[in-house]
Amino acid sequence: MYSVRLTEKEIPKKWYNIAADLPVEFPAYDQTEEGKQLENLPKIFSKGVLEQELSTERYIKIPKEVRNIYKQMGRPSPLVRAKALEDHLDTPAKIFYKREDTSPTGSHKLNTAIAQAYYAKKDGVERLTTETGAGQWGTALSLACNLMDMDCTVYMVKVSFNQKPYRKTIMQLYDGEVLASPTDRTDFGRKVLEENPEHPGTLGVAISEAIEDALNDEKVYYSLGSVLNHVMLHQTVIGQETQKQLEIFDETPDVMVACVGGGSNFAGATFPFIKDQLDEKIDCKFIAVEPSHCPTLTQGDYCYDFGDTAGLTPLIKMYTMGHDFIPPSDHAGGLRYHGMSPLVALLVHEGIVEARAVDQTGVFQSGVTFARTEGIVPAPETCHAIKTGIDEALECKKTGEEKTIVINFSGHGLLDLAGYDDYLEGKIVD
Amino acid sequence: MYSVRLTEKEIPKKWYNIAADLPVEFPAYDQTEEGKQLENLPKIFSKGVLEQELSTERYIKIPKEVRNIYKQMGRPSPLVRAKALEDHLDTPAKIFYKREDTSPTGSHKLNTAIAQAYYAKKDGVERLTTETGAGQWGTALSLACNLMDMDCTVYMVKVSFNQKPYRKTIMQLYDGEVLASPTDRTDFGRKVLEENPEHPGTLGVAISEAIEDALNDEKVYYSLGSVLNHVMLHQTVIGQETQKQLEIFDETPDVMVACVGGGSNFAGATFPFIKDQLDEKIDCKFIAVEPSHCPTLTQGDYCYDFGDTAGLTPLIKMYTMGHDFIPPSDHAGGLRYHGMSPLVALLVHEGIVEARAVDQTGVFQSGVTFARTEGIVPAPETCHAIKTGIDEALECKKTGEEKTIVINFSGHGLLDLAGYDDYLEGKIVD
Repeated sequence: MYSVRLTEKEIPKKWYNIAADLPVEFPAYDQTEEGKQLENLPKIFSKGVLEQELSTERYIKIPKEVRNIYKQMGRPSPLVRAKALEDHLDTPAKIFYKREDTSPTGSHKLNTAIAQAYYAKKDGVERLTTETGAGQWGTALSLACNLMDMDCTVYMVKVSFNQKPYRKTIMQLYDGEVLASPTDRTDFGRKVLEENPEHPGTLGVAISEAIEDALNDEKVYYSLGSVLNHVMLHQTVIGQETQKQLEIFDETPDVMVACVGGGSNFAGATFPFIKDQLDEKIDCKFIAVEPSHCPTLTQGDYCYDFGDTAGLTPLIKMYTMGHDFIPPSDHAGGLRYHGMSPLVALLVHEGIVEARAVDQTGVFQSGVTFARTEGIVPAPETCHAIKTGIDEALECKKTGEEKTIVINFSGHGLLDLAGYDDYLEGKIVD
Repeated sequence: MYSVRLTEKEIPKKWYNIAADLPVEFPAYDQTEEGKQLENLPKIFSKGVLEQELSTERYIKIPKEVRNIYKQMGRPSPLVRAKALEDHLDTPAKIFYKREDTSPTGSHKLNTAIAQAYYAKKDGVERLTTETGAGQWGTALSLACNLMDMDCTVYMVKVSFNQKPYRKTIMQLYDGEVLASPTDRTDFGRKVLEENPEHPGTLGVAISEAIEDALNDEKVYYSLGSVLNHVMLHQTVIGQETQKQLEIFDETPDVMVACVGGGSNFAGATFPFIKDQLDEKIDCKFIAVEPSHCPTLTQGDYCYDFGDTAGLTPLIKMYTMGHDFIPPSDHAGGLRYHGMSPLVALLVHEGIVEARAVDQTGVFQSGVTFARTEGIVPAPETCHAIKTGIDEALECKKTGEEKTIVINFSGHGLLDLAGYDDYLEGKIVD
């Protein structure tokens, strides 16, 4: 058996909220200097997601409308055994990958985009704003808004806007408005441009602009594609489906791997299994993989910091490189974030999740190996998880262990071929 | 229910050969001037496919190895009900689409690439040559060869090579060798370049080069991605799966639509249903849709012609614009072929299949409508089928008929965003 696909009826009915099962207390968001930012939250987030953000209910019902759109957009996604990759590596390990690339927008991001657009629509909001770096998140939110008959404005980091013209095209195809950030649409954008008209933009700046845009109009909300608790929550459909699928394969995981930028695909894939781990039902190693160019978990500080550059978000406790950190250029644009999901950060801090940083050349090499064996071209972000999955499988080859390794295949790389082209031409160095 | 996905076990065990059921005799390939080209066939094609090319057996067993790779590459593919599109059109018709875009290479082409590589490998061949225009076929054959541990050389029409650099990258990712045709690798290529060093290349020239390359080395075969009978045969997994899936939906088709360049995705989707039609089990309209820029079926002659430009293929009876026809530039590069599958041509000639030509602006408009409702960005080629499916659904809106329309979604457009960009900027005219 190569793959297990569930029927539409088997789609999860509830999201899993790890806040109910944390071994220590979750560090509250309320330690701002003036408390102003916390007051802002109800102005930019829907009632639905704000409630989820602070909830400690273990399971939260997925609205029927959201489940229907999940189905329409192809969920449940397949879990595949990577037999060709196993053969190629000549490893006794079994490797599985959960295919989040089968979403129409090519990544896991649609899982939360649909939910966030749904709750915003319920509040009567007409437009969502957001930021995007690599473009996956802006693409997903553009489609989700369009499906909900809402407008969407995407502040896209200028350097990505210029490097990835087709990301802009696909967002426009989904009827999203795409702006190269810093823009002259916001006070903060204008301030940044005044200081440096050639500013290449950063995710932090783009977040600041998107929040300011939403704060200025009560018919507009802001939407974040990762980091926050409710985003982690929405992604848990991934892990819950994987649990059912591994059962059908008659397997329990020994190693689970996913890449981390803001942390959401990692959280989505692993949190339901981390519950099993805390309940002592499984004995699994959870590895969060980041680029060595932006080593938030492996070299950042665990402390309170802003989620954006301008300081418009509440202070949140996380691993961080500092909110003014500008990571070096990297093809895995989705992983170039200074901070990390507070939930993922806490689990790393508690030693429940292991963090690992990997270099770009090994990352692309793994992507090529995967494409040549399993056929699918992984996103550079996803290659971080694949690289680590391969490393673990090769370790098994040394030790002879028949471990079950599960990789979260967070997205495809069909709009990232420029990076592969650079790699094939030897232009990528660590 | 939005979609029906079959399990791996439900993958077809046999290919369906429509040659067993044709209402008139199939016009033989043997009417060449010197017969030389027919002698060539065993030098460039495997025993397996040559046998299939001339077979009149109704069902031909799919080798277990091929079925396993089909499974590994994600078959069976889903059949989806386009409810969001139906709602948007406000039509009483039901619209279904068969998702061949879920193959790792993004289109139906892998179905025959795997089979052709398998039979070549069985003959002990070390390399396959082929041509590619839009790039879908070269991508599929590169991956298939790599999976079979064979080399692959792709003669890519130069204008596409330059316009679509990422198509080259993805073929190289799959370890294919990609050359811009005309090349100086072959006598015919050198001759073309001598006459015009700036020659932009055509599919006919690229076919001629790929055949010449294969003729010069007995360890090398040539592989064609469409047109020939065995290619149509291999694609019938699409239609057979669709039959099972429609049964589960409890539907029979009233209209089936697919685009045609060489004819293979159309054949694959419809031939098993055309058998049902000939057996009077269903009453269905089959529509083959081509671009008005290359109106082979609607304006070509039904006569004997060469499949390539240099005259290296046998003469085959088909609709053709003439083997030296150079179609105008069109974003649906996969449909820019002067000829047509003799099987599809015969069915059109017999009135069993209806042919329709559509303009580019309507084609792209339909692609945008599809992306905004169903989420998936269709290849420009596929948009031809979608445009016609939408036209038929809108006709039902007028008449009130609740027809069941089935579209073959032959491939995604993620590597064709330049065309959409042109469309969104108003640069595409008919």
